[in-house]
Formats: sequence, C-alpha cells, structure tokens
Amino acid sequence: MLIVKVGGSFNINWDAIIEDIAKLNKSGEQVVLVHGASQFRDKLAKKLNKPSKIITSPSGIQSVYTDRQAIDVFLMAYAGKINKRIVEKFQQKQLNAIGLTGADGRIWLAKRKDKVLYKEEDKVKVLHDNLTGRVTEVNGHLLYTLLDNKYIPILTPPALSYEGQLVNVDNDIAIAAMVEKLNIKKLVILFESGGLLKDIYDKNSIIKKIQYKDIEDYYKYAKGRMMKKIIGAKEALENGAEKVYWGDSNSDAPITDALNGSGTIIYK
Amino acid sequence: MLIVKVGGSFNINWDAIIEDIAKLNKSGEQVVLVHGASQFRDKLAKKLNKPSKIITSPSGIQSVYTDRQAIDVFLMAYAGKINKRIVEKFQQKQLNAIGLTGADGRIWLAKRKDKVLYKEEDKVKVLHDNLTGRVTEVNGHLLYTLLDNKYIPILTPPALSYEGQLVNVDNDIAIAAMVEKLNIKKLVILFESGGLLKDIYDKNSIIKKIQYKDIEDYYKYAKGRMMKKIIGAKEALENGAEKVYWGDSNSDAPITDALNGSGTIIYK
Repeated sequence: MLIVKVGGSFNINWDAIIEDIAKLNKSGEQVVLVHGASQFRDKLAKKLNKPSKIITSPSGIQSVYTDRQAIDVFLMAYAGKINKRIVEKFQQKQLNAIGLTGADGRIWLAKRKDKVLYKEEDKVKVLHDNLTGRVTEVNGHLLYTLLDNKYIPILTPPALSYEGQLVNVDNDIAIAAMVEKLNIKKLVILFESGGLLKDIYDKNSIIKKIQYKDIEDYYKYAKGRMMKKIIGAKEALENGAEKVYWGDSNSDAPITDALNGSGTIIYK
Repeated sequence: MLIVKVGGSFNINWDAIIEDIAKLNKSGEQVVLVHGASQFRDKLAKKLNKPSKIITSPSGIQSVYTDRQAIDVFLMAYAGKINKRIVEKFQQKQLNAIGLTGADGRIWLAKRKDKVLYKEEDKVKVLHDNLTGRVTEVNGHLLYTLLDNKYIPILTPPALSYEGQLVNVDNDIAIAAMVEKLNIKKLVILFESGGLLKDIYDKNSIIKKIQYKDIEDYYKYAKGRMMKKIIGAKEALENGAEKVYWGDSNSDAPITDALNGSGTIIYK
C-alpha cells in the first residue's frame, strides 16, 4: 500500500495525480490519499473576517492558532469544499473515492496538546484553548475495509481527540502514525517546491538523497513548514517506512516522477 | 433498519436525538442519519456575499438556484461544518459516526435536471446551469458494510450525477430511493413544526394520521418546503415503506416521541 500526501496549495495537478493513482490501482497497488487545504483555508478565513493567526513555538516552529471558531473555518475548507471537490475529480475519472476526515470512524485519534507554548516578542506565553493534537492511533480496520471493497480513501484533518473534540493535526505526523499501523513501506509526499532545496530561491537546488542517519544535518535547509515535513519523514522511517519520496505536486506525472527520484528521497 | 432525517434548522436537540439513537442501537436497530444544513448555508452564503437565490417552479415549488459557486458554499456548510460537528457530537457519546456526502462512494447517484423551469413575474424561464438532481440509485453495499461494522453513517447532500458532478438533491426524495434499495419499513423525519399543521400558526393543530390513499387531500396544508416532505413521504410509501413518522426535532426525545405518534404518521 502507498500513502500519497498532497499539500494544501493551489498549485496541484490533480488530473495527473489521479491518472497516476489509476495506474497504481491497475497494477494492484492500493492507495490512500491525504490532503491539506491551508491556502484555501487562509483565504476563506479572511473573507469571513477570522484571519488565520500564526504562532511560533519557542523552538521556532510555526503553526496556526486554532480555537473553536477556527475549527469551523477549517471544516468548511478541508472537510467541505476541498475534500469534496477532490472526491468529485476522482469520481469523474471513474475512481470510487470516499472523502473522510480523521474524526470520521475515529480514523485518526489524537492526543490533544492541552498547553501550547508560543513566543510573543521575547516572552514565552501559554495557550490553553488551542485545539491541536498529535495523531497517536489509527483505525486501520476501517481503512482496510474500504480499500478491500475497492474504495479510495481521501483523508484530511481534523482528527478526533481522546476527549471527543475535533482537533487540527499535522498531516506529516498523522502519516507517520499510519505507517506504523498499516505497515507501510513507501510514502509519496507532494508539494510545491518538489523537494528539499539547498537554496529556496532555486528550484534546481533539490537535494536528491538523504540517508536517515544524516537527516539532522539537513535541518538547516528546512525553512518554515518544511521543518514539519522533515520531522514527519524522520518519524515515518522510525515507524517502519523504507523510503519517503518527496516530489512536485504540479508536474506532469507527480507520483510517478517522485517514485523515479525527481525530488528528494529520504531512506533508511 | 431505521432512517432518521433531521432538517436543516438550528432548532435541533442533538443530545436527545443521539440518546435515542444509542437506545435504538442497543435494542439491535441499525440507524442511518440524513441531515440538512439550509439555515447555516443561507447565513454563510450571505457572509460570503453569495446570498442564496430562491426560484419558484411553474407549479409553485420553491428551491435554491444552485450554480457551481453555490455548490462550493453548500459543501462548506453541509459537508464541512454541519456534518462534522454532528459527527463530533456522536463521537463524544461514544457512537462511532462516519460523516459522508451522497457523492462519497457513490452512495447517492442522481439524475441531473439539465433544464430547470422557473417563474419570474409572469414568465416561465429556463435554467441550464442549475446543479440539481434527483437520487435514483443508492449504494446499499457500502451502507451495509459500514453498519455491519458498527459505524453510524451520517449522510448529507450533495449527491453525484451520472456525469460525475456534485449536485444538490432533495433529502426527502433521496430517502425515498433509500427505502427501496435498503428495504426500509419505517422512517422518522424530524423538523421544526413537528408535523403537518392545519394552521401553520398553531403548533397544536397537528394532523395526527394520514392514510396513503388520502394523501393528496392534504396537499392544501403543505406550505413552502412542506410540499417536498409530503411528496417524499408519498414516494417512500410507494417504494415499500409502511410508516413515515414526522416529529419535532427539538423535543426531549425526538425519535421516541415521533415513533409514539407525537407528530404526523403517514401510513399505507
């Protein structure tokens, strides 16, 4: 089985991704798709006068401050418009997709962070109402039931906390949890830059291969949200994955290209 | 199996509905929930400066004009916020709900109306870009697979057209199609007024029983959207249902009360 993750930008060649998945299905490979919707969420949040507020952790990792109202906007973007428009695209190609959040059927159970530290100017402050968490359990039975009946699961956050709340989670970490539960060996992670860049202004500076034992040497190249991706890849390898393929979500054959090494391969 | 439909208003006693469903599950009865989200959709559409536009058919039935942009708003409201907040409420009571639109897994396949007639002042006009349809096929296999694995399906429009487009459909007609496919004998339909009223200003004027053979005599009491409900009930009975129970979505035990005859019972 292959997990394919597609980032939350607008620069995604869906037709080509779906074509690649159709080919994989034909060759007998089952695929679970995980997607984001951050660009559309931010746009919608602005339109609704609830702009996304970015917070920075003491170690410098950025995330979106997520109260209950922000979860509502999140649901409209991720579970509503983006997830269902992706399902529609699959259905138009005769692939029987089912769109689900991590909360549906408890696919992703998350430990909620009851305290979140963040920096404001030079001070470290604490948030108590942040609805974010970390996926620690996966309902593999439901996913296999769907796959064995020839459905393609299209997964998106939020997840469900152990207290039964909808919580935002990081997709890369959720995928690392799925790797362990579903015994997955290969991951394809598609996003705009198509790989880890030595120089973020030069798309040709992609680092082609990173071995797990050296991964921390590459943290210095991970700007902004790339840090989460690299930590997700590290955890996926620790949980049993053999190779993580990063690739360009907007190429002519995004999954095939990534598997052929067009982006960055992180391996054990 | 029992289908429970809950209307799209804000006056819904979800805690009590979920308690009733938990009881039904314990007694061995499987439940599929179908819900709307029209009030929230209208509110959201206004906020996004795309207010819902009502059209009236030549025979006087009102519906919402639905172009592609309106489907986006629809998805945010129905599939996004409302569906997932309902799933969250079920999960908080330890009921393992799965929220799905009719398009997911082709649960509801609909014949799209390629021409829609509407009245403007005294003229009859034609719409060609209206994305609405009528559910004619139901994926019973998927619903039974979920139910047999102890999940509670929480269904909402849109459906999928045979051409692969997301289309708005009428829930009451979709339910009538489910009755036929799933061989369902009893339906519970919950909404604000709690039944068919002789006098719409008097909640105590509920008509308690309507026999199928007399149903057309009651059309005169069906104001506004009630006409769709009465036609849906008629079709459900024609498709094999024995009893349709209408009841108050905001009572202390909405499903139990409806099954005990607190609202209108339409029977064969």
